[in-house]
Parts: sequence; structure tokens; C-alpha cells
Amino acid sequence: MIEYGQFFDDAILRLKAERRYRVFADLERDAATYPVARWHRAPDRIEDVVIWCSNDYLCMGRHPDVIAAMSEAASRYGVGAGGTRNISGTNHPLVQLEDELASLHDKPAALVFTSGWISNLAAISTIADLLPNCLILSDQLNHNSMIEGIRRSSAKRQIFRHNDLAHLEELLAAADPDQAKLIVFESLYSMNGDIAPIAAIADLADRYNAMTYMDEVHAVGLYGPHGGGIGERDGVMDRIDVIEGTLAKGFGTLGGYIAASKSIIDAVRSYAPSFIFTTALPPAVAAAAHAAVRLLKDGKEWRAQHQRQSMLTKHALSAAGLPVMNNPSHIVPVLVGDAELCKTATDMLLERHNIYIQPINYPTVAKGTERLRITPSPLHTDAHVVHLVEAMVDVWQTLKLPFVAEPKIVAFRREKEKETEEARCTFPEFKKAAE
Amino acid sequence: MIEYGQFFDDAILRLKAERRYRVFADLERDAATYPVARWHRAPDRIEDVVIWCSNDYLCMGRHPDVIAAMSEAASRYGVGAGGTRNISGTNHPLVQLEDELASLHDKPAALVFTSGWISNLAAISTIADLLPNCLILSDQLNHNSMIEGIRRSSAKRQIFRHNDLAHLEELLAAADPDQAKLIVFESLYSMNGDIAPIAAIADLADRYNAMTYMDEVHAVGLYGPHGGGIGERDGVMDRIDVIEGTLAKGFGTLGGYIAASKSIIDAVRSYAPSFIFTTALPPAVAAAAHAAVRLLKDGKEWRAQHQRQSMLTKHALSAAGLPVMNNPSHIVPVLVGDAELCKTATDMLLERHNIYIQPINYPTVAKGTERLRITPSPLHTDAHVVHLVEAMVDVWQTLKLPFVAEPKIVAFRREKEKETEEARCTFPEFKKAAE
Repeated sequence: MIEYGQFFDDAILRLKAERRYRVFADLERDAATYPVARWHRAPDRIEDVVIWCSNDYLCMGRHPDVIAAMSEAASRYGVGAGGTRNISGTNHPLVQLEDELASLHDKPAALVFTSGWISNLAAISTIADLLPNCLILSDQLNHNSMIEGIRRSSAKRQIFRHNDLAHLEELLAAADPDQAKLIVFESLYSMNGDIAPIAAIADLADRYNAMTYMDEVHAVGLYGPHGGGIGERDGVMDRIDVIEGTLAKGFGTLGGYIAASKSIIDAVRSYAPSFIFTTALPPAVAAAAHAAVRLLKDGKEWRAQHQRQSMLTKHALSAAGLPVMNNPSHIVPVLVGDAELCKTATDMLLERHNIYIQPINYPTVAKGTERLRITPSPLHTDAHVVHLVEAMVDVWQTLKLPFVAEPKIVAFRREKEKETEEARCTFPEFKKAAE
Repeated sequence: MIEYGQFFDDAILRLKAERRYRVFADLERDAATYPVARWHRAPDRIEDVVIWCSNDYLCMGRHPDVIAAMSEAASRYGVGAGGTRNISGTNHPLVQLEDELASLHDKPAALVFTSGWISNLAAISTIADLLPNCLILSDQLNHNSMIEGIRRSSAKRQIFRHNDLAHLEELLAAADPDQAKLIVFESLYSMNGDIAPIAAIADLADRYNAMTYMDEVHAVGLYGPHGGGIGERDGVMDRIDVIEGTLAKGFGTLGGYIAASKSIIDAVRSYAPSFIFTTALPPAVAAAAHAAVRLLKDGKEWRAQHQRQSMLTKHALSAAGLPVMNNPSHIVPVLVGDAELCKTATDMLLERHNIYIQPINYPTVAKGTERLRITPSPLHTDAHVVHLVEAMVDVWQTLKLPFVAEPKIVAFRREKEKETEEARCTFPEFKKAAE
């Protein structure tokens, strides 16, 4: 007699023993006060917290125009698509969104999925399987969804060391010249915050006649003159065959997409089971995402303020002697290097300082590189940054975590900063919304 | 030199040669007039059509209370979750929805995914992989998402003939008694409309000590005293270990879920990459789905009217001599048996009669069983049914498709029915919304 329950109980016990068991914080986002939200600590205990780890990087999820777009579309079209894309689910707002996304990346066509995870699964596996005898060359730090897409295909795969052009070239040079090749990588790696040498990868692709597939999920909306991502910023979008993005981070809603040639889009649309056999994104979600994309096409000030607050946070934490992991992007990783200490540190930030940062442990990052991953937004004020730095220093001191230099917290007095906070938050949309 | 474009072009040409190339109808649902919608036939040509193939079975996607729930939640919480479930994305409306879904199926816990497709992929693969040396017994007609879940796991699999208890027992009896076993099936098969012998499958599971996993996506909201599905209707929910459902059909929005024991839910939540590495469902979508679930817990009249219109449609089509494929559910499949004729018939319904029904061809159904799949809703009036029957008879006659009996269309005069249409549509919510 098999006791099935025990296998699931054991699986949970293993995670607990390895200090990898995750507890989801029950959060009530508040569109009027974000990044301040309510944490349901217990059914009868609700506390205000500052969210410092969201991927709603540009706060589009609370932008009044984006909210209005969702509400208007819900009233007009209803709340669901009512079917798969093929069976009554292709709604007009979704078609319009796809046109906009194609235009954003200067590609002939785009295709929307219900998540970025599915975009990568569907697109990578389908593209690779339509290429004869395909070899996939995959960056070592690619996201789980890309790895699942690669696994789902029957292509051979080789892993190149992270952002290592010499290693990539070595693998390309060793491969059969007549073999189809697909280089799969990200423009911006979310846990380290480092950026791929896109132009140099495209050069290698040209030299060795390979296709390129680039995941821009942590960059779309955030970089480039119109929010087209690192590819647009670097002027190399036309050199990448398939650009994959998300609607759930910079664009604040839900869903993922690819932009590419008409025939690639048509082939993925027609062959990917994970696309064919699933309900389409609701018109209200498509309309909200579309509003965010449009806003950010002309959203230089959002990107500038996002970069400003990210750089301020990095500099302030570094100045306080905290071990910020250096990178050229908006991601602010702070090294802890131990799963249990990482968890304890974030618990203390939450319980003592009302700062919510989720610990990043294995399997999201390698063991020994456990970290806090901080994501400032345009609406994190300078006062929020001061509060964060003071809280982090307190936690580091309490837990006797190593500083990289002497704390220099004196430069950041909360009182002083509070005076200028109002002047800094210069987004009239939110002022209006808060009234 | 590899010309990559040709492989995608060729892939599309193959579909066109096999008459399997799909064109998505660009539809503008209208919450005020559904099932009448606007079809964007061309950029400058928009026509009214009656949608007869949506899986928004109970029209919850346009219910004013559900729309209001989405708009209110969007205003209050914003339009996105802002992160994965673990990293700031667990929003309070989603937690509340999971509690409601657990209660709906009388299970200790539930877990929401961004689609039903992902629910099946994540849950089946994770559960099977946590059981040692697992054998999956899978119904031959299981949905693609279940097959993908089975493929994604490392379990062995055996296919039993559709709804064939003797074959299932034969496979169970032949298996090692000490081997973990998972029986995977659907309660209601969407393309045939037939229903599984759930109690008898549960009996076999008891006898041979197997776990049971049941997909109820085409039944939740539609069957059972509280919309818990066929499992609730038949009083057997407690005999099934894992019930999987969707929020995108009977509940009119987007997303999928499983309901099961606390330890199964905790294990899937903790181990499934397709759950861990994806953005959570937005609070506004969760709130809308929750409103629909609550409405339908007390929604006997919706279910009754849905059944009434489905039975009326079946009887009317049968009376007209059309080859309705018999089944005991709300699904109305009409056999064509040829991919090209199926497409031509639906094109003619759309272009000549403004009736939108998508042809169902391979790979969704087996070759030779191509069909029209008609899904009446509570808001398809008797006049709509008359219009449908007359149009179908016209198309069948024009294309010389075989009738199973002499058409008896005289019983359904559109004029006569129109008189009672207003009286029939007795849902005050929609009257109010239309004003």
C-alpha cells in the first residue's frame, strides 16, 4: 500500500531542511500609495511596508492612464477573451497591441502570449524544431523559461559561459557549418544586472551564419529612446532575429511576446501547442499593456527618474559599506552568500523596518551567491532610499554580516531628505491620482 | 549558407497544402451586446456577427458584477501583480481567490496559475516527478496541456482507450502493485462533449491504490449545485486527489488552478518551475474571477438557462437533419469529416449569415472527424437558435453536405420566436447594463 501523501510531505521537509522553503508574503498593493503597500502579516494584522523588490520597474501597474485603459476596456469588451486565439479569442485590443509591439522593436510582426515564460517556451522550442538538425547555443545564465524552451525542443544544445564571446565563438567554430544554429541569450540578466554584448554576438552570428534570439524582459520599457530595450539603446534591434519581451515588468501588466519576421511569427503562431491550446489574453489586459507601451514610447522622464533612483540607491548602499554587486543597470543586488542569513536579513527588514525585499536563494541563483535583489522605481523617493540604507545597515550590524567599508550613513539624513521629497516626485499623474 | 527564412516559409506552406492554415478572426467583443460582436473583416470593414463558439460558456466575461470587480480592483490595486508569486507578486485578491476555489471543490487548498494550460503542465509534471517510479495512466483524449505535463515529467506513461474502464483496469492490474500510479483524465471532453465515469474511475483507483487527477475545465461553473463541476454534480469531488480547473471558460476571465490537499498544493507551489518563474495573475483579474466564482456558487438559474439553450440548439439542429454528434453535455458538435469542407462551411456561415463558428480540424481533433463545435450560452436567445439552424441548413444544402434526415425547419420560424425573445432573456443584470 503506497501512502501518497508522504511523498509530498517529504518533498516539503527536504526544502525546509535545506532552508529553501518559501513563504509568500500576502501583499495588498495600493495604486494610490505604491511603493507603499499593505502586508497581511496575519489575518488580523496588517502593516504598511515599502516594496523594494517588484519588477513593476516603472510603476506602470499603478499609472492612472493604464488603470483607466483596463477599466474602459473591461466595460466595453468584458473581462475575458472567451477562447483560444483561433477559437473566438483573438480580440481587437490584442491585435492592436501586437501591431504596437512590432513597431516598438521595428519588426514586421509580433505575437502575444499569456506570459513571458510561455513566450520563451513556445518560441524557442518551435523555432528550433522547425530548423533541421538545429544546434542551440545558450548563455549559461539564461532564465528558466528559456531552458525549458530548449529542453522542450529536440535540438542539440551547448552552453556558453556567461557573456563569454570567446567561448561562444569557439563553439560556433567547432560546429558543422551546414548545421542550423540558434544563439539564445538575454540582453540584461535580472539577478546580476549585467548586460550582454549584443552587437558582438550579432557579429558572431553573421560570421557563423547563426540565428539570434534575445530575451529583453528586464529591459523593455526601461531602455532605448522609445523603451525598446537594450537592443534599441545600442541600435542593434535589426541585427537580432527574434526579440522576446514581457508586458509584466516595465509595462506593468501581464503577458509576454515575441517580435520577428512575418514568417517566424506565423510559424510560431501555427505550430506551438502552448500558444494554440490556451485562452488568449483578455482585451482589458491587452488594452492596459498597450496604454503602458504607448506611454513609455514617449516616456524619457520615467526612464531618467528610474535610472536616477537606481543609481542613487546603489551609491547610497555602497557609501554605507554594503556589498553591492557592481553592474551597469538598474538592478541593485547586495551579496549575502548564505541562504539562511539571507532569509533572516529580509525577515528582519520586514519585521523591524517594514521594508519588503524577498531573499534570492537557490535555485534562482547559485548556492553561495544568495543575495538581496533591490529594484528601485521612479516612485521610490530619496527619503525611501535613506530609510532603506539605514535599515540595511542596522540589519548588517545586528546579524554581523560583513561590510566592505566603514558605513558612511551620515550623508543620508532622513529629515534633510524629507524636505525635498515633494519636489522630487514630479509626476503630475500621480499627484492627481492621490487627490 | 543557410537561408533560415525558408524553413519558416516552408512550414507555413505545408500547413496551407494540408488545409490546416488558420486565420484568426479579429473580433471586438461588446459587453453590452454579447453574443453579438463586431468582426474586423478588413481594416475598413466591420460587421456584426453572432459568436457561437466561445468558451465563455455562461457569459461571465460580460457580467456587470464581474466587470465592476475588475475595474474596482484595478483602481484600488493597479493592473499588475508586479512580480512572481515569491517575489512581491502574491496579491491579496489572489489569496482570497485561492481560498474560494479550495472551498468550491471542498479541498483544503488551491493554487492559481496564469492559465489552465500551465496548471496542467506544472501540476502533472511536478506530482509525477515527486512520486517514485511513477506510472501515469492517461485517457487517450486528454487535452494537449495534460499530455505536455506528462511529457515534461520523467514518469512512464500508458494510454487507456477513451473512457474505457476495462482497459484502464487491465493496465492497472498489469502494473507493479508497489509502483506509484497516477490516473489522469478529464471530467468532460470538450470536443466530443462526453463525460467520464468518475465514480467508477475512483473505484478503480481505490482498488489498485492509484492517485487521481481530473481536469474539470469545461465543467467548472457549469455543473453541480455550486458550479463545482461534474465532480460536484456526481458527489465525487472527495474521491479525486487533484481537481484542475480554469478561470477562463465558465468563470469568464483568465487563469487556471488546482485544488487538492495542503501538501500537494505546497509541493507543486514549491517545485514547479513553470509556477515559480512566472509573474502572478494581476489582482484585477483575480478579483474578477473571484466575483464570477461567487456569482456562480449561487447561479442555478444561469446553469439552467445554459442547459436549456444548449438542449434547444441540439434538438433544433437534429430536427433539421444536421449531424449533431450525440453527447450528454452542453457541447454541440456537428460532424463534417473533412478539413476543407469544414473551413468552407464556417467561412460561408460567417460571410453569408454573420454566424461565427471556428472550424475544428486536426490537430485539435482526429482527421476525418473535423467538425463545427457550437457552444450555446444563456444569452443566445431562441431567435439566435432559429437563425443558426436556418443558416446551417442553407450551408449544408449549398455545399451538398449530408443530412442525417429530412430538414424539418418549419418548426422554427424566426418571426414567431422573436415575440418571446424579450421574455426569455430574464437576467436583470444585463437589462440594466444595456440601458
